[in-house]
Amino acid sequence: MLSQLLKPDYEELIRAKDWNTLRELLTELDPPDLAEILDGLSPHDATLMFRILPRAEATEAFEHLPLERQTEMVETLADEQLVRILDEMAPDDRTRLLEELPGSVTRRLVQTLSPDQRKIANQLLGYPERSAGRSMTPEYVAIRPDMTVSQALAHIREQATRSETINVVYITDAKSKLLGEVRLATLVLATPGDRVDTLEERQVVAIPATALREDVVATFEKYDRVALPVTDTAGHLVGIITVDDVLDVQAEEATEDIQKLGGTEALDAPYLDTDMPTMIRKRAGWLAVLLLGEMLTATAMSYYEREIERAVVLALFVPLIISSGGNSGSQATSLIIRALALREVELADWWRVLVRELRTGAVLGLILGVIGFMRVQFWPTAATTYGPHYTRVALTVAGSLVGVVLFGSVVGSMLPFALRRVKLDPATASAPFVATLVDVTGLVIYFTVANMFLKGVLL
Amino acid sequence: MLSQLLKPDYEELIRAKDWNTLRELLTELDPPDLAEILDGLSPHDATLMFRILPRAEATEAFEHLPLERQTEMVETLADEQLVRILDEMAPDDRTRLLEELPGSVTRRLVQTLSPDQRKIANQLLGYPERSAGRSMTPEYVAIRPDMTVSQALAHIREQATRSETINVVYITDAKSKLLGEVRLATLVLATPGDRVDTLEERQVVAIPATALREDVVATFEKYDRVALPVTDTAGHLVGIITVDDVLDVQAEEATEDIQKLGGTEALDAPYLDTDMPTMIRKRAGWLAVLLLGEMLTATAMSYYEREIERAVVLALFVPLIISSGGNSGSQATSLIIRALALREVELADWWRVLVRELRTGAVLGLILGVIGFMRVQFWPTAATTYGPHYTRVALTVAGSLVGVVLFGSVVGSMLPFALRRVKLDPATASAPFVATLVDVTGLVIYFTVANMFLKGVLL
Repeated sequence: MLSQLLKPDYEELIRAKDWNTLRELLTELDPPDLAEILDGLSPHDATLMFRILPRAEATEAFEHLPLERQTEMVETLADEQLVRILDEMAPDDRTRLLEELPGSVTRRLVQTLSPDQRKIANQLLGYPERSAGRSMTPEYVAIRPDMTVSQALAHIREQATRSETINVVYITDAKSKLLGEVRLATLVLATPGDRVDTLEERQVVAIPATALREDVVATFEKYDRVALPVTDTAGHLVGIITVDDVLDVQAEEATEDIQKLGGTEALDAPYLDTDMPTMIRKRAGWLAVLLLGEMLTATAMSYYEREIERAVVLALFVPLIISSGGNSGSQATSLIIRALALREVELADWWRVLVRELRTGAVLGLILGVIGFMRVQFWPTAATTYGPHYTRVALTVAGSLVGVVLFGSVVGSMLPFALRRVKLDPATASAPFVATLVDVTGLVIYFTVANMFLKGVLL
Repeated sequence: MLSQLLKPDYEELIRAKDWNTLRELLTELDPPDLAEILDGLSPHDATLMFRILPRAEATEAFEHLPLERQTEMVETLADEQLVRILDEMAPDDRTRLLEELPGSVTRRLVQTLSPDQRKIANQLLGYPERSAGRSMTPEYVAIRPDMTVSQALAHIREQATRSETINVVYITDAKSKLLGEVRLATLVLATPGDRVDTLEERQVVAIPATALREDVVATFEKYDRVALPVTDTAGHLVGIITVDDVLDVQAEEATEDIQKLGGTEALDAPYLDTDMPTMIRKRAGWLAVLLLGEMLTATAMSYYEREIERAVVLALFVPLIISSGGNSGSQATSLIIRALALREVELADWWRVLVRELRTGAVLGLILGVIGFMRVQFWPTAATTYGPHYTRVALTVAGSLVGVVLFGSVVGSMLPFALRRVKLDPATASAPFVATLVDVTGLVIYFTVANMFLKGVLL
């Protein structure tokens, strides 16, 4: 592994302006490693390094840089150099970069592409955001069904340099309707004179160009392929998606879900590369919304001010009660958000989930209720700390725990379904969001139960 | 796509005992689709279907079943049939299945494997859990460096059926030391007389057999390969890992992190397939621990009981204050857990993160503080609801919000580092866990600030 190699001090060499040694060291490296080194340098140094690299290496390394670093370098590179790189980038990677840039910059850059490349870029950009059309590359090899194995291999040899992968090639008719696919491995193992359409026994799986990228990931997970064809509504082959891009998309999707679940907007960049204003903006929004939501608890509490005044002991358990509701809600919402993302659960399953969560929530509530009861009832100083009616207080705590845990489980599990129903991202039902929703109701449950057990005694 | 096909009613056909039609319909399907249908049936029906399938189809479909369904079917299938399937399964998939079964069942099954297969299974099982060694397959094609392209192709044709992929083949010496790799695509494009060790210009990237599976995923993400070789400490090739398995591992890792972040143990099975006792067990543990933690808030509150009695108004804002601390903690912890999982942040970066979170937390705290101040100060009925000293109450709320948000951000971001430092999974720092930690301190901050602003007035 790389970590076993001794890394030369590139910054030192830049200071010393030792361009020859640098160029030699850098061209020996694999593009992903080169990209990693560039990524670790200041933008200024990275641009310098970039300029001394041979053309092919520079392009390949650029493609391996993280997206946010690419957009940064667009600013610092000379126009001519940038166009060269854009022209040579793989179309799908270029589309992702162009998508990320402000509209005006994109237009200017697309205009400077060579006519062929511009056509490809425009075509890819025509598909809806986060669709299969945006991730596909039009660089594949297509063969005709009546070709023999040796004709197909000859055709592949001709087309290979213009293709992102030749591990799989696609059988189409003259109007590029997708008829099938053949693995290079199958061709290599086959008899040279056989017709290609007699070779592959697997069913061809095609992805519609408008499919969401989550569905692309799910299809790849199911079929274990290294590439899948993308078709338009009429079944014409318009591009292919390769598994390396799917790996990236899957990681991005998970990152977004985790960040949203934690109550931030998706950062869209590594944590340490996010500048302070962006970081504040992505976090302050939800925090402020949640604070406004939490203010309802102050209103609810003031509604019960009389009860608190009469029995201050009630105030002691407020944090415990509302947190337990929030915790069970957080559990339920994270389980359902992930199950929805993995397509393990569909919108239509909401009823089955509700039944499960009602049962699970009731059992979990009982378990916590018993623990809560014992904590108050058998506290060494119960009679002095919680007053002479401490058993009734214990019953109040226990009863409220059953209620809030049950309520938290149900709200936490149903909210993602409700959001999906109105076409919002289920992951918006973050743990803090659910906790806030449950807090107000938790207070109402608590003081209602208190009125049941303590009326005429303390209240 | 599949959804476009009309699905026959398989259950109907089973009821009618129409085995011939069934067998015909099923053998037309691709193994992943067949597996999906089997997965949708009751265990009894699935076993019946399984028995009428031809041997090859049965094995392939079995490999595509979810792991928890496989373990279930191990119980229902006859020994003889099961051994046949195990013998023909890809070694890496078989290892995952064997790992999942109770130890006694595993031993019995491994003993019934053919001697060759048993050797492979034992070899794979010897590596630590969640290591690259466990996910690798020993079914690859190795060639010698002095082979010509045509010799290599001939060798590949011989070995292909025993290999999981031939998209990449590996160059080793007589002692199986890994010297390099060559893509099948490169071989097909090369001159037949060339030596294979002169062909591939990419650096070979090898994964140590003891590498954690998260590192395997990270390596695949970086290098965009369809397969990577696994080596022992001496650099001998011991197996390969294919990208389809990595896609599955990546999804599983994200699922685990999301479930842990939500405050449950990892379910290790789809939500709807998890039975009630398991679901309760995986959720009750953390809920109970968190409840015990929250009980400290009751203790803290009783410590401030005198203050609450004198100024009941203070109790009104308790939920708001502690929730805001929990929310900012949840944000910080989810950001850092994901950054650690993606290797964007390393253990050594804790200091940089701390500095960032101190600054971010201070700004976020100020924003919330201002909102909180205004909420109390400009509330229409402020003077009656919060008493004559409502401005001091507003200052107490604002000051506490600054404190708890800052504290929440710092604790939430540092806890994952602390857990990683003591070799625990950082994702254990769930949102509810951080919230609970912050709650007690939040109360102390709140009542301390209250004493500052209200001493001699209300307190």
